[in-house]
Amino acid sequence: MKRTENEELKQLTEAVIRRIFVPLEASGRHVHITKEQALTLFGHGLTPKRELSQPGQYLAQERLSVVGPKGEFRDVAVLGPERQEAQVEISVTDGRTLGIVPPVKLSGDVSGSPGAVLVGPKGRVELSAGVIAARRHIHMTPEDAARMEVRDGQTVKLRTFTERPLVFDDVTVRVSPKFATFAHLDYDEANACGMHPGDLGRIVP
Amino acid sequence: MKRTENEELKQLTEAVIRRIFVPLEASGRHVHITKEQALTLFGHGLTPKRELSQPGQYLAQERLSVVGPKGEFRDVAVLGPERQEAQVEISVTDGRTLGIVPPVKLSGDVSGSPGAVLVGPKGRVELSAGVIAARRHIHMTPEDAARMEVRDGQTVKLRTFTERPLVFDDVTVRVSPKFATFAHLDYDEANACGMHPGDLGRIVP
Repeated sequence: MKRTENEELKQLTEAVIRRIFVPLEASGRHVHITKEQALTLFGHGLTPKRELSQPGQYLAQERLSVVGPKGEFRDVAVLGPERQEAQVEISVTDGRTLGIVPPVKLSGDVSGSPGAVLVGPKGRVELSAGVIAARRHIHMTPEDAARMEVRDGQTVKLRTFTERPLVFDDVTVRVSPKFATFAHLDYDEANACGMHPGDLGRIVP
Repeated sequence: MKRTENEELKQLTEAVIRRIFVPLEASGRHVHITKEQALTLFGHGLTPKRELSQPGQYLAQERLSVVGPKGEFRDVAVLGPERQEAQVEISVTDGRTLGIVPPVKLSGDVSGSPGAVLVGPKGRVELSAGVIAARRHIHMTPEDAARMEVRDGQTVKLRTFTERPLVFDDVTVRVSPKFATFAHLDYDEANACGMHPGDLGRIVP
């Protein structure tokens, strides 16, 4: 009986927290590829290994190397499902290792971005564009967006309740019924605010 | 004549800017060592190569390797003059490479911090403590501190006028007549706010 009450209290607390705060997540470097590219690189489509916070999105079993003019990263995560266009998301710090200056752009907008070479066990793909530092953003359900009074595409400020607290100014809100509500930072940003797993943020005026 | 006027205008603008803004600087990973350690590592004291923004501080000709349990950095900058106590300032990202979790601490406070091994051309030094991620801070002259109404040791908020603007919450002000007024960020922080050389910040309420 005690245990059930504790469980209920925990769920209630969690529900209240979700109404006020936005959970923070750090995205490490990762790659999105097309079905055709998966065939070239791995000889088959992507295989789900672990679900991610966004419904339907997964970390693939397959991993690949990202090669730039100055260096490379091996064993880089590939996220599925496959997309219409390849995208390599790295931090500005990663860019220094590769010898690529990634423009800070919203995920999905790779226009004018630099390329890189992807190497898998079965082949290689030369991207002429696609390398970006993902602009910080909040995925949000329509319910949470209505509650927090923000709309799709809006830029908001996000206060982080973290070891090295700060307020990020230019955070883009993306609203979709396909989303779960999470703020996504890259590792430069996560380290700069001293973020640890489970940390929370809050949209502020 | 025209040139002199332009020069005057530039100096005037610069003076006005310095009254309102705080110039931002990014500190890469670097090491401070004692005279005794310099002798062990290099066989002699440190040799100045280039002056830094803080009066009397310099980048040394000498460079060394910092070795951690998981990896190492070669050719790491050493800053002079020598200090009473060694200190290795790295970013949290650097810590992942070395296999060391640096506590975020104010420069000069290495109590309870992890150690590392320093390797120079003439010898090695095993530090039992000294590795930190420097807490973001503003060096300030007494004149600027009076003007901006802050005092030594105070924690302020710093808005960055940068590519990825944000407000750092926990910025420590250090006031001394020996200082020049500059805000110091590490590379995680500089990348997270999209800082470029010459960028400015401003203390906000």
